[in-house]
Amino acid sequence: MAPLPVSPLARALPDLPPVAGVRFGAAAAGIRYVGRTDLVMADFAPGTTVAGVFTRNKCPGAPVDWCRAALPDGSARALVVNAGNANVFTGRAGYEATQANAADAARLVGCAASEVFLASTGVIGEVLPYEKISTALPGLYAILSETGWADAARGIMTTDTFPKAAVRETEIGGVPVRIQGIAKGSGMVAPDMATMLCFVATDAALPPSILQPLLAAGTNRSFNRTTVDSDTSTSDMVLLFATGQAGNPPVTTPDDPALAAFATALNDLLLELALLVVRDGEGATKLIEIQVKGAVSDESARKVAMAVANSPLVKTAIAGEDANWGRVVMAVGKSGEPANRDTLSVAIGGVWIAREGTVVPGYDETPVVAHMKGPEIEITIDLGLGNGIGTAWSCDLTHGYIDINGSYRS
Amino acid sequence: MAPLPVSPLARALPDLPPVAGVRFGAAAAGIRYVGRTDLVMADFAPGTTVAGVFTRNKCPGAPVDWCRAALPDGSARALVVNAGNANVFTGRAGYEATQANAADAARLVGCAASEVFLASTGVIGEVLPYEKISTALPGLYAILSETGWADAARGIMTTDTFPKAAVRETEIGGVPVRIQGIAKGSGMVAPDMATMLCFVATDAALPPSILQPLLAAGTNRSFNRTTVDSDTSTSDMVLLFATGQAGNPPVTTPDDPALAAFATALNDLLLELALLVVRDGEGATKLIEIQVKGAVSDESARKVAMAVANSPLVKTAIAGEDANWGRVVMAVGKSGEPANRDTLSVAIGGVWIAREGTVVPGYDETPVVAHMKGPEIEITIDLGLGNGIGTAWSCDLTHGYIDINGSYRS
Repeated sequence: MAPLPVSPLARALPDLPPVAGVRFGAAAAGIRYVGRTDLVMADFAPGTTVAGVFTRNKCPGAPVDWCRAALPDGSARALVVNAGNANVFTGRAGYEATQANAADAARLVGCAASEVFLASTGVIGEVLPYEKISTALPGLYAILSETGWADAARGIMTTDTFPKAAVRETEIGGVPVRIQGIAKGSGMVAPDMATMLCFVATDAALPPSILQPLLAAGTNRSFNRTTVDSDTSTSDMVLLFATGQAGNPPVTTPDDPALAAFATALNDLLLELALLVVRDGEGATKLIEIQVKGAVSDESARKVAMAVANSPLVKTAIAGEDANWGRVVMAVGKSGEPANRDTLSVAIGGVWIAREGTVVPGYDETPVVAHMKGPEIEITIDLGLGNGIGTAWSCDLTHGYIDINGSYRS
Repeated sequence: MAPLPVSPLARALPDLPPVAGVRFGAAAAGIRYVGRTDLVMADFAPGTTVAGVFTRNKCPGAPVDWCRAALPDGSARALVVNAGNANVFTGRAGYEATQANAADAARLVGCAASEVFLASTGVIGEVLPYEKISTALPGLYAILSETGWADAARGIMTTDTFPKAAVRETEIGGVPVRIQGIAKGSGMVAPDMATMLCFVATDAALPPSILQPLLAAGTNRSFNRTTVDSDTSTSDMVLLFATGQAGNPPVTTPDDPALAAFATALNDLLLELALLVVRDGEGATKLIEIQVKGAVSDESARKVAMAVANSPLVKTAIAGEDANWGRVVMAVGKSGEPANRDTLSVAIGGVWIAREGTVVPGYDETPVVAHMKGPEIEITIDLGLGNGIGTAWSCDLTHGYIDINGSYRS
């Protein structure tokens, strides 16, 4: 199959300066792809803490199981990621592959196996050839570098059409702190489903008890508000590593005011990475933002926004540049959340088209038509019931999605 | 836009003999389409009872509101259905259109307006030109006939590619009884979403108190187990009319053993009609049956089956004739229902491919490959947890779906 064209919604990879205490690198281990890197490793300075959030899919991959078991210790010294094989639904062989990979990395770094975090992405149900990883790891470890971030962003791609990273500079207690992350997701040709991986590192000094709630809150407001095709992967994970090299003053509670700027920067970075994943959604040509207000609660607003974001009829209409507000009304109504046809209003590109149970007579179609031709579509829904607000992001559903996912695996 | 090709999964319209007490007809009222019938009417003998189930969408169309209000009386004398305009999200004008249509039909038939049932299907958000219906109704009423069923099946189509009907003969208390129904659904070019309408009539004598639970149970096991694209329409409705002309002995409780054959025949007919709708799913080339067993409950099995039925990645894989069991595992896992990767088994076309957390070593791919090339795909999932069973039906997701729904409305 020919390489996929780069998404029209792609963003250039930003400059990725060092984050003190983090070294990255990538190598070609020949796991599935030919002529490209497919194995990424990082090592972290002693004392690095870690937080993680994982797929809610009930059939998770072996690396997800491994990371869930390792996370409670809150300590990380290494990360090993391969592309091309997800190590999902591989039974005992899958478990043994994670053990072997972690042991190999721990030996190189000089740490406990439980301080090694693992992620795999690619085809499901094929045994991971962990010997190839064992063979490649020593050479990869030897070239780890503080400037290896861009190589890592490329090495974790499967059929992503562009590498994804984001950078933030902030402060804790007046001390400058850096947060930097890479992500992959949504390109799927030979593999089997849109797996999303995201790795973020900061030089801040923060205990796991603070890192974990920060990451969970930020993920709920970013990755968990995005959808490409409503299919929850077995391999999704976001890991946040904090090396402590920035030397900021200690922070002991998640609601310490000294954390405000850091939390904002982290949330902002996670949202940027999440939207980069949507921008590389399979076949995507338009990024869609759905803002809901007037819901009975924020949670209700989120569910309404996600129902619209997941509607194939809304997504195909946007692919066709059709401001089809009737399908938005349908999707609001099918969400199951409190909604009242007669208080519902819908705007597209800032123009209110439907209000109080009927179309707005003589609304100006010209700016709406122009908006629909652009690459970023805004839908605003006012339920007119309460003060709940929520936003979700999606992409359009095009022939490209069918091309990518309807072609035979092998 | 050129007419859609007839679905490769189409079924021929069966012979539709009279059902005593029911007369049908169709006319061209010029509501939206040119050169075809778009208005259907039926009248029913005095004493006809009625049951109905309606969309759960929170933004229902005006005709759904009308029927919900009329249903508690349990008495029906007429049905009026138009194609091309759904009369949804049309505010006060939509309500007034239903009042006018019902009043016109009641005058012709000589009944109360609340004995007239209304359905509309087509574009959302445009005011229904009810005057065109008022003008056409008297001529249509004059040609109603016991042999008008096939005309009615054609007259309610929007962008359906074939008319849909099913017939059953059964008995109640030894007296022969007929059940016959028509349905539409899933063709969507100019209109806005897959609206599903189904009208069933029987000559059985059954009070509404029995008809309603029979219809609800039958719908839960048929229409509510099918999906084309997960988008719940604002106009869905199934109505069941019983004229009482068969002269069967009275039945007074829903669990009367005399009803067993009738209930079986009704369930069977509803499932046949529901599968005809899926066979005409937008862009469909394959009918998919998903059988789940070993769930913790029947309800859990239903949810797992529907999660697989709604997965875009499963549906595109089947379009590509790929026995992609990994995506089935993913969809089971994302359903949120109790599932255990290590007790989960998946068969496609009767061949067990995945069992107990891993692929079945050396399973025979040849019959699976042949099965995937056929028009009807069977997926069996054994969760290995309990005795719950459930089945769902879907169709594949193809370029045809994008073509139909991604083209501009007008």
